[in-house]
Amino acid sequence: MTEKIPTAAVLVIGNEILSGRTPDTNTNAIARFLASFGIDLMETRTVGDVETEIVAALNALRVRYTYVFTTGGIGPTHDDITADAVATAFGVAIGYHPKAMAMLAARYTKPGELNERRKRMARIPEGATLIKNPVSGAPGFQIGNVFVMAGVPMIVEAMLADIGPRLARAPVVRAIAVAADIPEGIIAAPLAALQAAHPQVAIGSYPRFHADGSHSVELVARSRDEGALAEVATACESLFRAAGAKPQRRDPA
Amino acid sequence: MTEKIPTAAVLVIGNEILSGRTPDTNTNAIARFLASFGIDLMETRTVGDVETEIVAALNALRVRYTYVFTTGGIGPTHDDITADAVATAFGVAIGYHPKAMAMLAARYTKPGELNERRKRMARIPEGATLIKNPVSGAPGFQIGNVFVMAGVPMIVEAMLADIGPRLARAPVVRAIAVAADIPEGIIAAPLAALQAAHPQVAIGSYPRFHADGSHSVELVARSRDEGALAEVATACESLFRAAGAKPQRRDPA
Repeated sequence: MTEKIPTAAVLVIGNEILSGRTPDTNTNAIARFLASFGIDLMETRTVGDVETEIVAALNALRVRYTYVFTTGGIGPTHDDITADAVATAFGVAIGYHPKAMAMLAARYTKPGELNERRKRMARIPEGATLIKNPVSGAPGFQIGNVFVMAGVPMIVEAMLADIGPRLARAPVVRAIAVAADIPEGIIAAPLAALQAAHPQVAIGSYPRFHADGSHSVELVARSRDEGALAEVATACESLFRAAGAKPQRRDPA
Repeated sequence: MTEKIPTAAVLVIGNEILSGRTPDTNTNAIARFLASFGIDLMETRTVGDVETEIVAALNALRVRYTYVFTTGGIGPTHDDITADAVATAFGVAIGYHPKAMAMLAARYTKPGELNERRKRMARIPEGATLIKNPVSGAPGFQIGNVFVMAGVPMIVEAMLADIGPRLARAPVVRAIAVAADIPEGIIAAPLAALQAAHPQVAIGSYPRFHADGSHSVELVARSRDEGALAEVATACESLFRAAGAKPQRRDPA
């Protein structure tokens, strides 16, 4: 591939992930979304609700990758500090965004409903554009190459839909999976040779250990080169057969 | 608290997490394990199967936190490069560890079973001690403040059991949760005041958006100071009642 493939990082923000209270599912959803655009996710991080940590992580990631996607910390409560942290990271001011305020006003129509704390959700760093939130109204935002989203998975999903048209696309990485009921250690040597012969294909080997003491392994080959991928898939099947196992094609998703 | 609370980071290693193929569940399991020891998890990262990335992340994390826990990349196949990367990060040699080799020999007893690729799982950085793996035999290892584990969740669980006795313990962070069927924006102002009045308690506010358009919120307060925590719990209940909602204590786990 001579063209430049866009890259990305995910930054999850929230004490609830680090405490173990909440299993993070957003990273996997974003990973799959990016894969569908041909964007390579290179790194993910999780930090707590601490401004200095958010700023440091964001500044490390945004200079390194084409895009950064953050989740969490843009609600109305005291622990929602992401917008301020992003403004600090970019060295820009933060203030009430008229269009964001209009979105909130459309959502909170009863007298007193749009209180000061809810108005805080319209505070957007200078130079940012909004990301629509059809679930709860309060928008996310994009500043430079950084997309700032909510933490609630349903809202992340909706915000990704609004972000999609803004992203570069590249040829999607195709994957094939071949599994067999055999321990991976038996086929590891020919597999290493196969990988060495096909540097343009990334071959992963994922073992499973079953309750009855038996083993299986799934080989997942990933590449933007479909010809090379097909060759590797066939070679994986041959390699299983040579070891006396019956290969099975699997859905690699 | 005047005593020093141990801290930790998790480093997940594996292309399968970044591609979206595999949702990471190990981080949450490790987070809960550490919480039970009173160890504060401060940060998590995920990198791919790339030596320079593993080395850089590990060296950034191990100087900063009391402990680092890695998962993934210690099997017999070509994509298992974690042990070498850890040796590089620590600037030490790597070689066949006699005790690790004995563990593999006890597992692979048939002629030819302990092949060259499987023997690679006994390659351990100099100065490391082993972590038992009752599931598949091949050990993890500890070097300095870094614990290197497999990626398979069942093996991670077993390895954590072997790691436990090596860890410092601190008073466990207690949590209380109070929920109510009310949007968080309504109670955000008194909640901010409550947080400001109790700096030794971390209060998180986690909204839910239901399919019927209704909202609920769960307040989770976390602290090592049980007296302050009880005060905050009662105050959260009062704050919900003042807003016309009925508070419910929840299991914060």
